[in-house]
Amino acid sequence: MVRELHARRSGREILLALAAVCIASVAGAQTAPVSAGPPDPQLIEDLVAANRILADQGLLDGWGHVSVRHNRDSNRFLMARGVAAQLVTAKDILEFDLDSRPVDTHGLPMSALFTERYIHGEIYKMRPDVVAVVHTHAPSLIPFGVTKVPLKPMYHRSAFISFGIPVFEIRDRAGMTDMLIRNPTLGHDLTEVLGSHPAALMRGHGAVVTGPSLPRVVGRTIFLALNATLQMGGPITYMDDEEARKIEAREGHGLARTWEGWKRKVMTKQ
Amino acid sequence: MVRELHARRSGREILLALAAVCIASVAGAQTAPVSAGPPDPQLIEDLVAANRILADQGLLDGWGHVSVRHNRDSNRFLMARGVAAQLVTAKDILEFDLDSRPVDTHGLPMSALFTERYIHGEIYKMRPDVVAVVHTHAPSLIPFGVTKVPLKPMYHRSAFISFGIPVFEIRDRAGMTDMLIRNPTLGHDLTEVLGSHPAALMRGHGAVVTGPSLPRVVGRTIFLALNATLQMGGPITYMDDEEARKIEAREGHGLARTWEGWKRKVMTKQ
Amino acid sequence: MVRELHARRSGREILLALAAVCIASVAGAQTAPVSAGPPDPQLIEDLVAANRILADQGLLDGWGHVSVRHNRDSNRFLMARGVAAQLVTAKDILEFDLDSRPVDTHGLPMSALFTERYIHGEIYKMRPDVVAVVHTHAPSLIPFGVTKVPLKPMYHRSAFISFGIPVFEIRDRAGMTDMLIRNPTLGHDLTEVLGSHPAALMRGHGAVVTGPSLPRVVGRTIFLALNATLQMGGPITYMDDEEARKIEAREGHGLARTWEGWKRKVMTKQ
Amino acid sequence: MVRELHARRSGREILLALAAVCIASVAGAQTAPVSAGPPDPQLIEDLVAANRILADQGLLDGWGHVSVRHNRDSNRFLMARGVAAQLVTAKDILEFDLDSRPVDTHGLPMSALFTERYIHGEIYKMRPDVVAVVHTHAPSLIPFGVTKVPLKPMYHRSAFISFGIPVFEIRDRAGMTDMLIRNPTLGHDLTEVLGSHPAALMRGHGAVVTGPSLPRVVGRTIFLALNATLQMGGPITYMDDEEARKIEAREGHGLARTWEGWKRKVMTKQ
Repeated sequence: MVRELHARRSGREILLALAAVCIASVAGAQTAPVSAGPPDPQLIEDLVAANRILADQGLLDGWGHVSVRHNRDSNRFLMARGVAAQLVTAKDILEFDLDSRPVDTHGLPMSALFTERYIHGEIYKMRPDVVAVVHTHAPSLIPFGVTKVPLKPMYHRSAFISFGIPVFEIRDRAGMTDMLIRNPTLGHDLTEVLGSHPAALMRGHGAVVTGPSLPRVVGRTIFLALNATLQMGGPITYMDDEEARKIEAREGHGLARTWEGWKRKVMTKQ
Repeated sequence: MVRELHARRSGREILLALAAVCIASVAGAQTAPVSAGPPDPQLIEDLVAANRILADQGLLDGWGHVSVRHNRDSNRFLMARGVAAQLVTAKDILEFDLDSRPVDTHGLPMSALFTERYIHGEIYKMRPDVVAVVHTHAPSLIPFGVTKVPLKPMYHRSAFISFGIPVFEIRDRAGMTDMLIRNPTLGHDLTEVLGSHPAALMRGHGAVVTGPSLPRVVGRTIFLALNATLQMGGPITYMDDEEARKIEAREGHGLARTWEGWKRKVMTKQ
Repeated sequence: MVRELHARRSGREILLALAAVCIASVAGAQTAPVSAGPPDPQLIEDLVAANRILADQGLLDGWGHVSVRHNRDSNRFLMARGVAAQLVTAKDILEFDLDSRPVDTHGLPMSALFTERYIHGEIYKMRPDVVAVVHTHAPSLIPFGVTKVPLKPMYHRSAFISFGIPVFEIRDRAGMTDMLIRNPTLGHDLTEVLGSHPAALMRGHGAVVTGPSLPRVVGRTIFLALNATLQMGGPITYMDDEEARKIEAREGHGLARTWEGWKRKVMTKQ
Repeated sequence: MVRELHARRSGREILLALAAVCIASVAGAQTAPVSAGPPDPQLIEDLVAANRILADQGLLDGWGHVSVRHNRDSNRFLMARGVAAQLVTAKDILEFDLDSRPVDTHGLPMSALFTERYIHGEIYKMRPDVVAVVHTHAPSLIPFGVTKVPLKPMYHRSAFISFGIPVFEIRDRAGMTDMLIRNPTLGHDLTEVLGSHPAALMRGHGAVVTGPSLPRVVGRTIFLALNATLQMGGPITYMDDEEARKIEAREGHGLARTWEGWKRKVMTKQ
């Protein structure tokens, strides 16, 4: 915001702008939050790619979404308006504050935003370590939200499962609902169950996955879903927690390579 | 029909046309029914898209079909002539009355129509709430038509399964047949088993799915088939009926988004 | 052959030609059989399409093949030289006699032909009703060749399974081999096990499928493989044999539609 | 190297070059090994194709790699720099000695190479019969690395499984690690477990597959993964070891056909 003020010309204009901010602050939820300024174009490109990669892998469609924290302000995040993931372009990306209020809807009605945007705002609010969030309805994850069989790491690529994947049961918090995270309170409830884990399943609904970057959260979503398809009922030698910690600690340029492959495929397609 | 008459020039021609209509009416099944007039072009486009989306998802091929009620007359419905779903274009769409008789076959023999068109006519006749119908041979549904394991909702997207998916056993009605719905009587029998449910399985054959719009019936077909692939034998926490009702009551713009994504893919492909 | 003789000009030439045929006949396997003349171009196009459709569906690759009886002579059949199914073009199609000897290899060595061509010749020899043959390694069929669980019809599209799908155990006939049908004797053994059934599984190897036309044999191969993926261990209501007979008796234009859809996809692709 | 020396002009230059080689030799690991000269362009093309075919089949992504022994020197092998397999081009191919040291990184830092290149060097060192190596994370192989169910040959195409597929448990050799083959010692340990077998599974990680050529190792990787998806718990008639030996002994032009099909698809795609 300081940057924005500096761009203005006179002291009088600065005072007026400060006053506007105060008024906006008092007005609370009724007023749009102030923008943190234009995000890094590379971040926008990666967010577009993340949408299309997850659609290409069958993990997002017109439901489910991916967001990333704003590079200029950790109190803002970026996410597409309500649009099918495979169709997202840079101009669909909107900025939100941590109460999941859009900075500027570009004239769209609120109904044109994702209803469940509160998942993202509440996680960013309570988890300063999280830079990117995916909410997915990945089919292979659904059975693990509705049985007593826990997800466990089968596989080098899904080592993070070793850190625990809790299951969110919305009935424990809100009784009978339409199962959507329709408000900040439900987003907060979900984030409490998520705790410090990398991901949480949502019973009969899907999952939320977090990560320290867009490639990491996309990779985790892909391998969480893949691990679910591979997990069998028989006696399995799961990965040791210590192995998992060592793998996660060194997660590095290998993912960047894979990201380039995934990205090339979806960004040249249409 | 009024529109057609007005387009004619003299009173004498009008009388002759009225006479023709009377004669057609008396002639009954032997005579083609009268058209309700040209349908909304958007409805035709969506019907073409519905065919191709379901083909793209592996849920229709040269067998199986999707129809929609005519926007000008609830006693008419629209469906492609007998053609593989992925090849359907606007000029393949024909109009039928609720006895499943074509208004105009454009010179095609009756054998060029789908044999099982009676499924559609009979459902539209007995279910005024239904606007669109799919008949599918979706592979994942087949096992649930031939075992005692009922389909149950695993998943937010398939909440409508909670309303019940009966199984139609053609042998109970007609003994040994080639299993096709070859006449209005079999269509009526199937509709009786369907009752007020959103869909019915057909033993050893496929399923019929209904909905209040083309996007709804396409979405239901996709998620009915997906739910079947996810349903396991173990102890599962199925969705509560009340949750399902709440989800269905609010089914809204999310589907419209997904529809746009599905549609873009198939309409730009060829 | 009569047709060929008539095309020649003088009695002396006819005598010489007859002599040549006699010599060829005496020379036996060492001499190429005489051609039945150019096949119907539509049949060639359909044979190319059949190769590519089965490749597109994952049912043929560089192993496995599809053939059709020559339209001019029931003692000849047509099949591609040894080439991956998705790459087959009209100029790869060769003519064979029922001893599976090529009429003209166009200069190719015999090693450039499919080793297992004897499957086709021997079936055409013993089964006059068969017009087209597929030999596939379809993955989903493999388990049913190596367990005691029989293939049974789940499904309207796979009604022909009701007529029985025997399993060929090559060890019963030839002991330890490399499992390939490398000569007419093994082709004959396989055909004896096939008997009058529409298809036979080959233990640890694949299957052979027959039909009265190319679209029928391609459809049967696709739905045989699909039925295998759907068949479960639980108590299943299989199709009644009488239903199956009725379905098969009426198999008609529905397949033609599907064939057009399959064909468009593969013939415009490359 | 002789070729390189001959290309120089004077005796004095040759002496200087020889001296350089001696110094390089003394300097050991700190100095890049000498090139065996430019590989056969066809080998490079096939290595590029092998990368893309395995990516196309879902068996390689940004992790996992394929290498081939240099055609001029059995003490050198060729492998891509660290890049997603579907994006590999000829200019990404680097030359390595059997200590897995690159001859020339073309200015890339060592971190731009695959960390696990030691898998390849150590196998080539201990297995003179091996011409090509794949390291894959193929999903279907993962369960067989973590249960007591052994991989067994279901299928003509996977006859080589009959020769035994041992499982490498990295904890038996190195305790808790990040599970990667990060140095020659771990590569040596893995090769000891591999022994004379065609492939070895790596618990919770993937597999290594060897072969006498690029098409053979690619085919083995594809059919090893396919066999895993087909293998069921029930009583199965596995292939006899003698059958497997006979099949492997005759493995021939059939694979070449399939290779052309696979190659056409990936080499014309981008």
